[in-house]
Amino acid sequence: MSLNPKRTIAELKELRALTGDENGAQRLAWSDTWLKARDWFKSKLDGLPVEHHYDAAGNNWVTLKGESEKTLLIGGHLDSVPNGGWLDGCLNVLAGLEVLRRISDEYKGKPPITVRLVDWADEEGARFGRSLLGSSAFAGTHSIEADRGRTDRDGVRLEDALGRCGVDINRFPEAAQEQANAAAYLELHIEQGPVLEKLGLPLGVVLGTKGVERHAITFHGQEAHSGSTPMTARKDALAAAAKLALEIRPIAMKHPDAVCTMGSLKTFPGIVTAVVGRCECTLDQRDLDAKVLAQMYLEAQQASQRFAAEEGCTVEWNRIWNIEPIPFNPQLIEFCDQAILEVAGVSHRLPSGPLHDAAEVARAGIPTVMMFTQSLYGISHNKIEDTREEHLELAVQAFDKLADKTMRWIQGPNKA
Amino acid sequence: MSLNPKRTIAELKELRALTGDENGAQRLAWSDTWLKARDWFKSKLDGLPVEHHYDAAGNNWVTLKGESEKTLLIGGHLDSVPNGGWLDGCLNVLAGLEVLRRISDEYKGKPPITVRLVDWADEEGARFGRSLLGSSAFAGTHSIEADRGRTDRDGVRLEDALGRCGVDINRFPEAAQEQANAAAYLELHIEQGPVLEKLGLPLGVVLGTKGVERHAITFHGQEAHSGSTPMTARKDALAAAAKLALEIRPIAMKHPDAVCTMGSLKTFPGIVTAVVGRCECTLDQRDLDAKVLAQMYLEAQQASQRFAAEEGCTVEWNRIWNIEPIPFNPQLIEFCDQAILEVAGVSHRLPSGPLHDAAEVARAGIPTVMMFTQSLYGISHNKIEDTREEHLELAVQAFDKLADKTMRWIQGPNKA
Repeated sequence: MSLNPKRTIAELKELRALTGDENGAQRLAWSDTWLKARDWFKSKLDGLPVEHHYDAAGNNWVTLKGESEKTLLIGGHLDSVPNGGWLDGCLNVLAGLEVLRRISDEYKGKPPITVRLVDWADEEGARFGRSLLGSSAFAGTHSIEADRGRTDRDGVRLEDALGRCGVDINRFPEAAQEQANAAAYLELHIEQGPVLEKLGLPLGVVLGTKGVERHAITFHGQEAHSGSTPMTARKDALAAAAKLALEIRPIAMKHPDAVCTMGSLKTFPGIVTAVVGRCECTLDQRDLDAKVLAQMYLEAQQASQRFAAEEGCTVEWNRIWNIEPIPFNPQLIEFCDQAILEVAGVSHRLPSGPLHDAAEVARAGIPTVMMFTQSLYGISHNKIEDTREEHLELAVQAFDKLADKTMRWIQGPNKA
Repeated sequence: MSLNPKRTIAELKELRALTGDENGAQRLAWSDTWLKARDWFKSKLDGLPVEHHYDAAGNNWVTLKGESEKTLLIGGHLDSVPNGGWLDGCLNVLAGLEVLRRISDEYKGKPPITVRLVDWADEEGARFGRSLLGSSAFAGTHSIEADRGRTDRDGVRLEDALGRCGVDINRFPEAAQEQANAAAYLELHIEQGPVLEKLGLPLGVVLGTKGVERHAITFHGQEAHSGSTPMTARKDALAAAAKLALEIRPIAMKHPDAVCTMGSLKTFPGIVTAVVGRCECTLDQRDLDAKVLAQMYLEAQQASQRFAAEEGCTVEWNRIWNIEPIPFNPQLIEFCDQAILEVAGVSHRLPSGPLHDAAEVARAGIPTVMMFTQSLYGISHNKIEDTREEHLELAVQAFDKLADKTMRWIQGPNKA
């Protein structure tokens, strides 16, 4: 049985029909629909000579034992955001399954090295605001105490939601045992951005995931009556924030791949008849180069101080979250580039703005690379998320070639 | 019994103790506390030779019959916003009461013309979002059908809240009968802005109420992932709105008394990881000159179109509300100026940015003027709203002189 990319597409559609509705994918982690998706996935393993289990963090492992214990990991995630797309996360799982079938077939159930497919638990963090949950447990970067008490919008605690699915948060550190013998990690994902589409390319090599600085910024001015307060007597917190919303753009655009985003802005009291006394906004800054990221963060802070002073306001910053840039493995980047060239004739290297489980795996010291396939309109986390079927087929083919090259590399120099 | 401004201050404090709490005044129109304030006010009329009744819109009328049916009206409002100040509205009612006592005393209960004190119903509109409710019924500018179905935050209908206080909204037009014989209307109010305080003046003459153009503006861009969407591929609705938030300031500052305010701005989806796809904001523009107001409205529209185009967005405008500028009566403005000069030695003329019941009375064709007294910090609609007691005393004195001058003017040229 050779590689069959059309089967991957058929299975993606089957999963969509089973776990989506008119608003999109509904495989929210720890929900009944997510558990249904996992049961469905398990049924797809029938007849394959694999072992299957859930680890202590709820990650879903499928192991095809090889002659060597050295292991190639291939990963994705079945969970989605609410009203999500049909490809985000599950493309990786089902393309990985197809690659696993091809390897099992080619080596008659006993490849030279071990190959493991993992469906990470709660990549999206959509319910509790904590993404990469399962893969960070695997990587050993997870801090239980920081997440135990998180609640969803109904007040359900993260700890209790996991318990309902048979996962005990206190046992999370045991998931790191799954790192044993891991020699490389591969992940295929839709780009979720417009770069490959604009270049007219089906596939790209991911250089790493960008570092992120994420802050909550509050400007304090003076609430005042919109009718009775002269323009020159105002301390308008919105004006200071508006200046920053515009200034973050030149700060980012000095660097080729950097991004700065003000995604949320709230005004208080926020009524038509009052000058804004307090303005809360968020800033998300990303780049693959840690020095660029630090520079952008500094420039935004300085700009915010300047604008606050100009408007008679004060400003305070609170870090929401940050992560360093995580570059992928240079040798695997080369293999990925070659695989894409062989299948599509042309390749492109780009950083990933969004985070992925691959970042956590790389932080654990395991050589890692990702492959992107084009996203139409650059849209994801939405029911209109889409990729051309011919590009999905090319993606499965190229990803299979990458897996083959990586297996030979793991076996040793004479096999590469 | 001569004019006693200290009694006005004592009564203001008595009302504060009766109807306020640690968060400020709580005389929300149609509430039990408001009804309590009205009962208290009624008790203050004991011993005065006046007739008292509520009109069809719930306005509270106190009439001192004179030899002539020609009538001087003095008005204010006992209702407050939630957590309001101790002066907004009720200063007028209690200063008016003191003037009424002086007149009654001076003319032994029978002045040459009739004098009426009115406590307007629901000036603030704090509960149902419809300000000047009672005075607009009086003026005949009120449209019942537009307001009947308004609801408060608990879903209570305006019609039902009024019914509970014995007011039938269907009978509102009958309130216009109270216009009969009205020859002039006077209103004293705190400035609610910083102009008089900055000038170091206790009192000012109000030239009229500014016209208002109030719009909801929505910029439509494209929601996109903050990590994967290059800066140059964005359609950032917040960026377009931020440009407008800054541009409305030079648009206003071309004119000496004009104001433009963006009081509310909302981002959608409004999350840290997404470029803003939709931005909803409000714009409130005011000036005493209708041509200036029209020009500012046009310039803001044109600017919004330009910014939308620059950012790859579209923009739509929806009028929330508007009112034309309402200039006060030139002769009464002169009297007010003279009264202030006599009491304080120096006067100042300024427009009112906030609307007042006086605007509705003026729209009914009744010669009208307002007097302002200084507000500390320019703050109102807040428990810290305050005015120096010596300024309150000057205000009662000057307002009484204004009433006297106006009475003589109403009597005819030989009395002025």
